[in-house]
Amino acid sequence: MKGPDIKYLFEPRNVAVIGASVKKNKIGHKIVRNLLFNKFPGKVFPINPKGGKILGLDVEKSILDIKDPVDMACIAIPEKFVFDTVKQCAQKKVKFLVIITSGFSEIGNIKEEKQLVQYAKKNGMRILGPNIFGIYSSKVSMNATFGQKDILSGNVAIITQSGALGIAMMGKTKTENIGLSAMVSVGNKSDIDESDLLKYLVENKETKVIMMYVEGVKHGERLVGILKKATKKKPIIVIKSGRSKRGAMAAASHTGSLAGADEIFSDIMKQCGVMRAESVEEAFDWCKYLANSPMPKGKNTVIVTNGGGMGVMAADACEKFGVSLYDDTETLKKIFSDSVPSFGSVKNPVDITGQARVGDYEKSLFSAIKNKNIHSIICLGCETAVLDVKNLKKVIKEVYAECKKPIVFSFLGGTKLEHVITHLREKGTPIYSNVYEAVSCLGAMYNHFDTKYSIFHEKKINPADYSIDMKKIKSIISDVKKEHRNFLLSDEAQELMSAADITFPKTYIASSIEEAVASAEEIGFPVVLKVVSKDIIHKSDVGGVKLNLSSVEEVIDAYQAIIHNCRHNKPNANIKGIEVTEMVKKGTETIIGARRDASFGPIVMFGLGGIYVEVMKDVSFRGFPLPKKEVKNMVKETKTYPLLLGVRGEKKKDINKIVDTIMKLGIIIKNCRYISDIEINPLVVYEKGIKAVDIRILLTN
Amino acid sequence: MKGPDIKYLFEPRNVAVIGASVKKNKIGHKIVRNLLFNKFPGKVFPINPKGGKILGLDVEKSILDIKDPVDMACIAIPEKFVFDTVKQCAQKKVKFLVIITSGFSEIGNIKEEKQLVQYAKKNGMRILGPNIFGIYSSKVSMNATFGQKDILSGNVAIITQSGALGIAMMGKTKTENIGLSAMVSVGNKSDIDESDLLKYLVENKETKVIMMYVEGVKHGERLVGILKKATKKKPIIVIKSGRSKRGAMAAASHTGSLAGADEIFSDIMKQCGVMRAESVEEAFDWCKYLANSPMPKGKNTVIVTNGGGMGVMAADACEKFGVSLYDDTETLKKIFSDSVPSFGSVKNPVDITGQARVGDYEKSLFSAIKNKNIHSIICLGCETAVLDVKNLKKVIKEVYAECKKPIVFSFLGGTKLEHVITHLREKGTPIYSNVYEAVSCLGAMYNHFDTKYSIFHEKKINPADYSIDMKKIKSIISDVKKEHRNFLLSDEAQELMSAADITFPKTYIASSIEEAVASAEEIGFPVVLKVVSKDIIHKSDVGGVKLNLSSVEEVIDAYQAIIHNCRHNKPNANIKGIEVTEMVKKGTETIIGARRDASFGPIVMFGLGGIYVEVMKDVSFRGFPLPKKEVKNMVKETKTYPLLLGVRGEKKKDINKIVDTIMKLGIIIKNCRYISDIEINPLVVYEKGIKAVDIRILLTN
Repeated sequence: MKGPDIKYLFEPRNVAVIGASVKKNKIGHKIVRNLLFNKFPGKVFPINPKGGKILGLDVEKSILDIKDPVDMACIAIPEKFVFDTVKQCAQKKVKFLVIITSGFSEIGNIKEEKQLVQYAKKNGMRILGPNIFGIYSSKVSMNATFGQKDILSGNVAIITQSGALGIAMMGKTKTENIGLSAMVSVGNKSDIDESDLLKYLVENKETKVIMMYVEGVKHGERLVGILKKATKKKPIIVIKSGRSKRGAMAAASHTGSLAGADEIFSDIMKQCGVMRAESVEEAFDWCKYLANSPMPKGKNTVIVTNGGGMGVMAADACEKFGVSLYDDTETLKKIFSDSVPSFGSVKNPVDITGQARVGDYEKSLFSAIKNKNIHSIICLGCETAVLDVKNLKKVIKEVYAECKKPIVFSFLGGTKLEHVITHLREKGTPIYSNVYEAVSCLGAMYNHFDTKYSIFHEKKINPADYSIDMKKIKSIISDVKKEHRNFLLSDEAQELMSAADITFPKTYIASSIEEAVASAEEIGFPVVLKVVSKDIIHKSDVGGVKLNLSSVEEVIDAYQAIIHNCRHNKPNANIKGIEVTEMVKKGTETIIGARRDASFGPIVMFGLGGIYVEVMKDVSFRGFPLPKKEVKNMVKETKTYPLLLGVRGEKKKDINKIVDTIMKLGIIIKNCRYISDIEINPLVVYEKGIKAVDIRILLTN
Repeated sequence: MKGPDIKYLFEPRNVAVIGASVKKNKIGHKIVRNLLFNKFPGKVFPINPKGGKILGLDVEKSILDIKDPVDMACIAIPEKFVFDTVKQCAQKKVKFLVIITSGFSEIGNIKEEKQLVQYAKKNGMRILGPNIFGIYSSKVSMNATFGQKDILSGNVAIITQSGALGIAMMGKTKTENIGLSAMVSVGNKSDIDESDLLKYLVENKETKVIMMYVEGVKHGERLVGILKKATKKKPIIVIKSGRSKRGAMAAASHTGSLAGADEIFSDIMKQCGVMRAESVEEAFDWCKYLANSPMPKGKNTVIVTNGGGMGVMAADACEKFGVSLYDDTETLKKIFSDSVPSFGSVKNPVDITGQARVGDYEKSLFSAIKNKNIHSIICLGCETAVLDVKNLKKVIKEVYAECKKPIVFSFLGGTKLEHVITHLREKGTPIYSNVYEAVSCLGAMYNHFDTKYSIFHEKKINPADYSIDMKKIKSIISDVKKEHRNFLLSDEAQELMSAADITFPKTYIASSIEEAVASAEEIGFPVVLKVVSKDIIHKSDVGGVKLNLSSVEEVIDAYQAIIHNCRHNKPNANIKGIEVTEMVKKGTETIIGARRDASFGPIVMFGLGGIYVEVMKDVSFRGFPLPKKEVKNMVKETKTYPLLLGVRGEKKKDINKIVDTIMKLGIIIKNCRYISDIEINPLVVYEKGIKAVDIRILLTN
């Protein structure tokens, strides 16, 4: 059955606090206090078997004693009593259970947690938590947390998987003057997870920016789908620690072992348009800026500075954070020649020189504000003898008030200036001591800008459009499954490639000269002959390999030579036959793969460079499905991409065919749930066409 | 003649201020005021043709009117009067001229500046500037700047090339409570540069940390020599903007065009043990920490936290900043089992859990302080309901006072906690809101630790030890010079390689079959034959190339075939002969080079990967000379290094031979000043030995 509308988690009409307490240091007391302090407009029902009064409210002994209907129940009682209480909540037809109590899956009590979720689901209830500090929602002024009581309401929604960090962040938002529209602790995510919450928050008018602190992703495939749409509407920022943690994925295939789970997380977040912040401070800076700044109308940014050094530092930061500096020299000259002295520079960075007074800032900044060719502004300054700090404060205020474009400020100087920065920041002006911090905020804005305005068509992908015979593939896999094998043999893998219309070097096993010649003619010259024998491992060493055979005669000679050599060098070897294979032409070696990721479901991978892929780990990932265009981006993203464009006079390689083949692998893994990994390494790419030289396919256990 | 002792720049016995003024907003007034305000113990002589009194001091009309000897003269008068004044200073036997005045080389008046320097030198004087804001030195409490008057004295010395940024930084040190031992504005660096100043500062007892803001390097070779020694004694931090600026080097050779000047700067600073900070804030954080923290006794760092999330973030930061986490589980258990509850973690990060009270911090931190196996501590925390902030402040103070090891703190929370952080920071405790900032300081400490204790033998390098016949090389170059050519022809380059005992594929030009055969026998089979004709550019297209010839017969056939093919396909081509070359075996392709850099003098380069070197720009640089060990590090530093160790079952390549060959190129460029570039690309490396396949040598113009 469908659960209750998520709206009632953020906007319950009334709230019961089970485990409410008169003792001030108890969680059950703090939640009641916080609800009352924030003037939650609905009714608050404290529940405690002891009865009595808490903060002026009558305490009921059981939720069943409440006469009104109850949308949400916060449960803050010892773990052993939780299940019975949940049963009572079901009887009372509560919609959402906010289970504060810890002691469930986080310490290994997985069964107990599952039981709760199953019971709740069956009875039309949903669970937030357990092991959380609660939920705040500005829409109904509801602070159902045991964190601080006074929360600044505003436009930033925070979802946090860590309780301790979450409470600390809640405190920090207050000191940083960041207003919250919501703060949700998701804890063990036994039922409600980020995806459920995002559905509400994306539509929620109060919320302008969403920030998530994530430790692990459970239903990644669903999350990806929701994030992709959400980031078109609102900026989403994520912090995930554990960047240095490796090896969360099975090392059964390269696709898994090439990079830790963190690289995949990073790439998929980028694919979804989610911005990843390194630290809480960085995330908060971005949240604040994105919640308050107007959107730019284009990408032309101008730097105005009174110091060359600071200007260059900002230009460095622009490159780092993806901010484009406007460089139409003629237009810049027109805009700034009035406000820049002759020994300054009207190029970008615009240098109004160390002799600039506050009036010069005013003049040049207003020129930039007024001009339509400039879409955003970085204003920098060093404290100088001629710069009146008090006056500067006034002008920055005016400029910020007038500016309908994104603008950031960064000034460096002494105590007086530092006070101005602190004061202006408190008032909401985006001003920073650190140039990099200032520019990073603008970078986040442009990151969101790019996501919002990128063209994005995710069409339904049909295997038949890619000449994939899914029925055939499923039958191949089903046959392997019957043998209880979890990998495909070489010929099975080739059969699967055929069914997906992916070209590979043709191979036959010949047991006579006639067969060998026929095979060679079928394949087309030149070919390679190799002895097939489980007793001969180092085939070349015994003369069991002949390369580059260009005619029937050469094939006949080679066949005889191989048989002769092997009989002579390994008299007791059991020779199964002679393998006749297409001689693969030299091309650019790539690696492609698709796998079913534990967190994100189907993902695809691309890497380039044969031997270098192992050393450089120059690979990129994406969640599947995705539009072809995005697969192309994924290919372009690798550092070795220029090799495909042709270096040293080589011609451009068949990039479309690579993209197609990656799509195919994605479609296969998406549609055939028994396959866990497909990897082609190398996939040799030519000016026209590709060749899947080595294919590995693994099945789920 | 040798100039005056640099000591008198930092510790002049008295100072004349030429251009002293009664007007408060004049530079010449501010310098006098600052000198007096800081109670400079020597005499201050204001000079102004108008005479009179300034701030109670008698004004002399000319420096020649002063009776006492004068060590230093600050010159703050219009540019057109400077030279005459300098002449008077010479007459007065002044030692150091601090020329504040601007309007010299920075706006193109190079000649005027050179004149000053030459005149000063001839008369035993040295110049700081021009175009500067002055110099501060705590040793004699001398504030001879026109910046702020109240400077906090301390242990950090700052050298700045930017005036505006310098004055702003001076202001910022005050607000950040960073005490200065010196602040020197070097401006145009017409005479005195960083190297001169470092010589004093490294020996100066007041200075513990040196920070430099650099825009460009002039005498880099000298600077490198001084930095290498200086960083063994004191940490040196550099900020250089212009990371994104490219192409400052001539693109005449790969060694130059492969990377911008910034990569070379970065690599050479690293080679010197200098730490490069991204922003002023980062540099200041490091300065403050390095000036105040004790040195660690080893590399075992432990993280103590009350929140898992913050612990993992810190572990990420440790990886980023090169801080090693101690992971002897048994010892950690012994140290922390008393202070960590059973549901916490005694592994590193040590998690004292969200239920930890201040007492638990106290206990676990003191356990860490007392234990000899732990060399440094990262203490983290989230504000929780059970953490008493007031008490926490007290404990942090105690812990910091008791701790004789490097320690950093990072806490996240609400307003009260933020106040504690601000208060403690003001008192000098290394506590930060941002985990990354905290860990970066510890990273800087370990960076210095590694530099200080690295074994470092820079022996005099003798060309003969490397079997280099420098005399022969110089004669080859001299012959080319005579022809007014600035590049070497192929045979000249090979001759030079021979003189340096670097192996290359042997080549002869044959003009008959007999000669071709003799050459092939001399070289050894297999060989390659190629037509030599200026009329045939695409040799393969006309059948002018025959590869892999293994016998006399094959050489004869190939010779005839080439002649036949060329006559047939290019009847009018003038054939000079047939080139007979060694057939180069497949090996690992590398690129090595040496060049005379405009900033740093001789530098050497290494890169790996043939075609990939162009795409990935995976190259490293070093200033030359350097010990062999450091050349090895340079090779190891490239991302593709593992290829040399052998991947996919290949054997390890001859790394020593690469190192040797790089040394040879360095020696040649160092000893032969006419060579500007030597580049070998590819240098093919085998299990044993190398082969210089393509050699380019350019000469200076």
